[in-house]
Amino acid sequence: MILTVTLNAALDVTYGVDRLVSGTSHRVGETHERAGGKGINVARVLDLLGRPTLVTGLAGGPTGELIRGELRASGLPEALVPVGGDARRTVTVVSHADGQATVFNQPGPRVGPGEWAEFTARYARLVRDARVVVLSGSTPPGLPADAYARLIRTAAAAGARTVLDTSGPALGEALGARPDLVKPNAAELAEATGHTDMTAAALALRAAGARAVVASLGPRGLEAHTPDGAWHAAPPEALTGNPTGAGDACVAALAAGLADGRPWRRVLREAAALSAAAVLRPTAGDVDPAAYHRLRTTVRLEELHAPHTHR
Amino acid sequence: MILTVTLNAALDVTYGVDRLVSGTSHRVGETHERAGGKGINVARVLDLLGRPTLVTGLAGGPTGELIRGELRASGLPEALVPVGGDARRTVTVVSHADGQATVFNQPGPRVGPGEWAEFTARYARLVRDARVVVLSGSTPPGLPADAYARLIRTAAAAGARTVLDTSGPALGEALGARPDLVKPNAAELAEATGHTDMTAAALALRAAGARAVVASLGPRGLEAHTPDGAWHAAPPEALTGNPTGAGDACVAALAAGLADGRPWRRVLREAAALSAAAVLRPTAGDVDPAAYHRLRTTVRLEELHAPHTHR
Repeated sequence: MILTVTLNAALDVTYGVDRLVSGTSHRVGETHERAGGKGINVARVLDLLGRPTLVTGLAGGPTGELIRGELRASGLPEALVPVGGDARRTVTVVSHADGQATVFNQPGPRVGPGEWAEFTARYARLVRDARVVVLSGSTPPGLPADAYARLIRTAAAAGARTVLDTSGPALGEALGARPDLVKPNAAELAEATGHTDMTAAALALRAAGARAVVASLGPRGLEAHTPDGAWHAAPPEALTGNPTGAGDACVAALAAGLADGRPWRRVLREAAALSAAAVLRPTAGDVDPAAYHRLRTTVRLEELHAPHTHR
Repeated sequence: MILTVTLNAALDVTYGVDRLVSGTSHRVGETHERAGGKGINVARVLDLLGRPTLVTGLAGGPTGELIRGELRASGLPEALVPVGGDARRTVTVVSHADGQATVFNQPGPRVGPGEWAEFTARYARLVRDARVVVLSGSTPPGLPADAYARLIRTAAAAGARTVLDTSGPALGEALGARPDLVKPNAAELAEATGHTDMTAAALALRAAGARAVVASLGPRGLEAHTPDGAWHAAPPEALTGNPTGAGDACVAALAAGLADGRPWRRVLREAAALSAAAVLRPTAGDVDPAAYHRLRTTVRLEELHAPHTHR
């Protein structure tokens, strides 16, 4: 089983409007509500791949109830821990006239020390059955700075591998716990290390504790730096669509590959193909299956031989 | 007691962002949630005036629970009828850089015939204790076209006076039930009658059944056409601020005046003063008390003597 952790689970709400004009009132045509947060999106993709998965994390209040209800309706098993504060919403306004998406992210409710202790106790039991633990997204206010580091150590002690997809201080604080894999995008990598060169930045994350780094570079694919070598994997064609869920699809493929103990070359082909296939779908957590099956055999994989890329 | 009816009650959510840029992602700095819908805003102003008021209408699902909880916290008595569908939200994004407010209005849940019958039965009991009934805002999908007409007839049969503040087909369908007062704004008046001349439009609404019409004209004040005469009431100065709640404050003053059986001149002065004082406050349902007390003695009232303004 792959356990996905979403400490700041959200209800993702999409509003359709004719055209978004700042400073005016809009009649919302249609509304969609879906459980979200990066870890939940990863679980959706794993479920599409037929991989047993379990959603955990924090989700409280009436919005937390809506999140749990939507997960049940989607057939995704969940072990979310309720907290007192109401779970956050993310509102995406899709403007039909120009296709633009405008997103509003709430910060999420403050979590108390007792609630965090309740979560970590539950998590310690859940990781016993997990082959891989995926830790994704921002952390809500109130958590200790080393929240992800503690969760990584608990997972490692239980024999599970860990994949971390977060940014900013949460990423920096977690590296010392030696996650098996971190998956930043180009902007997160530059922010975390101060390096604009991808290779230098990835090596800096490895030096700080990450066992492997897979950076997602948008249409340019993935760059991986691992103990076994370094590679660049890219789809044969640039696909246009909604890039929001590409990172989560990438993480799902990486987690599935780690769970199976597959060689990096194969894992990276799968991850590049699944990311690109996610771009073709309008919602995060979904992939285009036909594109995925086509791309997994046509992704171009190039080994990076420069001496500074290995160690 | 003044009964305010909000058939499409809402949770009004305000998001603060640094600057709204269409097509990008925004971190929401602060979030405020408040029960809303025009009738609820009217009740808030009546409560500020010290007038006994009761909120009724339709509000279902978890969002309906949040609406009820917020009303309790605000000390506003409510007799909202729950329905199966989740109540709507309105999201207002305030851009701190330029002060602009961008609003997204959800349509509200569909209401079934059984739910409507349950509401009308409850309403028939509530109006027995009401001196005035205020019917405000849009109606949710699923209600009969003559929903407001029926509520007006029920109120009149119980001896209560009625104030209607709605627009479009809901306004047109309700006039035949002879509401005591309708309060359109300039755009609603033009849309309902096809007349761009305010006086011609107000007379057309009276001809269609409204006993009196008070049109709110933004900074230009109010124009009233009643069986006792016609007047224009305007504040001595143009006030700038947030006009969203000015119409609801106007309705509150009109309802309070009707409840007391006061002469129109006095009612109109109060309504013009209270509307203008609402513009000074950022949220609907609130007024600036100092401005209100200053303006109620300085509002300029002008009788409209043209022969076509009386009948």
